[in-house]
Amino acid sequence: MSNQKRKSNCPINHALELFGDRWTLLIIRDLAFKGKSHYNEFLQSEEKIATNILADRLQQLEINGIVIKQTDPAHGSKLLYKLTDKGIALVPLLIEIILWSARYDMNTPADPSFIDQAYRDRDYLINAISFALKEKLAARV
Amino acid sequence: MSNQKRKSNCPINHALELFGDRWTLLIIRDLAFKGKSHYNEFLQSEEKIATNILADRLQQLEINGIVIKQTDPAHGSKLLYKLTDKGIALVPLLIEIILWSARYDMNTPADPSFIDQAYRDRDYLINAISFALKEKLAARV
Repeated sequence: MSNQKRKSNCPINHALELFGDRWTLLIIRDLAFKGKSHYNEFLQSEEKIATNILADRLQQLEINGIVIKQTDPAHGSKLLYKLTDKGIALVPLLIEIILWSARYDMNTPADPSFIDQAYRDRDYLINAISFALKEKLAARV
Repeated sequence: MSNQKRKSNCPINHALELFGDRWTLLIIRDLAFKGKSHYNEFLQSEEKIATNILADRLQQLEINGIVIKQTDPAHGSKLLYKLTDKGIALVPLLIEIILWSARYDMNTPADPSFIDQAYRDRDYLINAISFALKEKLAARV
């Protein structure tokens, strides 16, 4: 909300601070754009999600088929979270949130080359990001 | 959330029940797609927003420049709410939410002709909806 200090200048965080609870989409952002997959990595994000909220939202995402949980082959005790096809299909929505923030918030440091590409060839950008996430989903690790 | 009763089968409501607080975007949906502009009309929506939440979210939307409030010339005591240009720019995001729900939720009665048009000519659909909302914004009433 505008009368509270922002938790980060990430354009996605900004848009959701304007229009709703944002934790779930921030986790999806981390999975889609930040290369994160471990519980501790989500905890370390700039917005400082609380561990009970993170656990709850990851569980809901799993229940709703947006995220899958796997044992990390590199660290047997750790869990990996990945976006499913249903989760990857949220990429266009995330891109719209980024574009809106880039357009209406001068303080949001959206990457200009990303914004340019989203305007010039939106479908190509969505396909490229989605392809990389589908490769990650299919990989054993 | 999947283990709670849905408040409606509206595809936008569905998507936001999956990934966050949804009241603000539901108000924007009402303004963008349902032709609503009065406080009482928002109260009557299927999801049954509480009056204190509605008042709070409308105020935040106004503070954030997404909605403007005007006196209704037809009923001097009533107020009209309209999407600003910044609010109208959320139409593509709403369309992405609808498309995602239409794809992944068999129980969502999304209008098939709307979905077809969104896939066939997304830009045309966005422009047509945005043009109508800009006309409404410019009108005295």
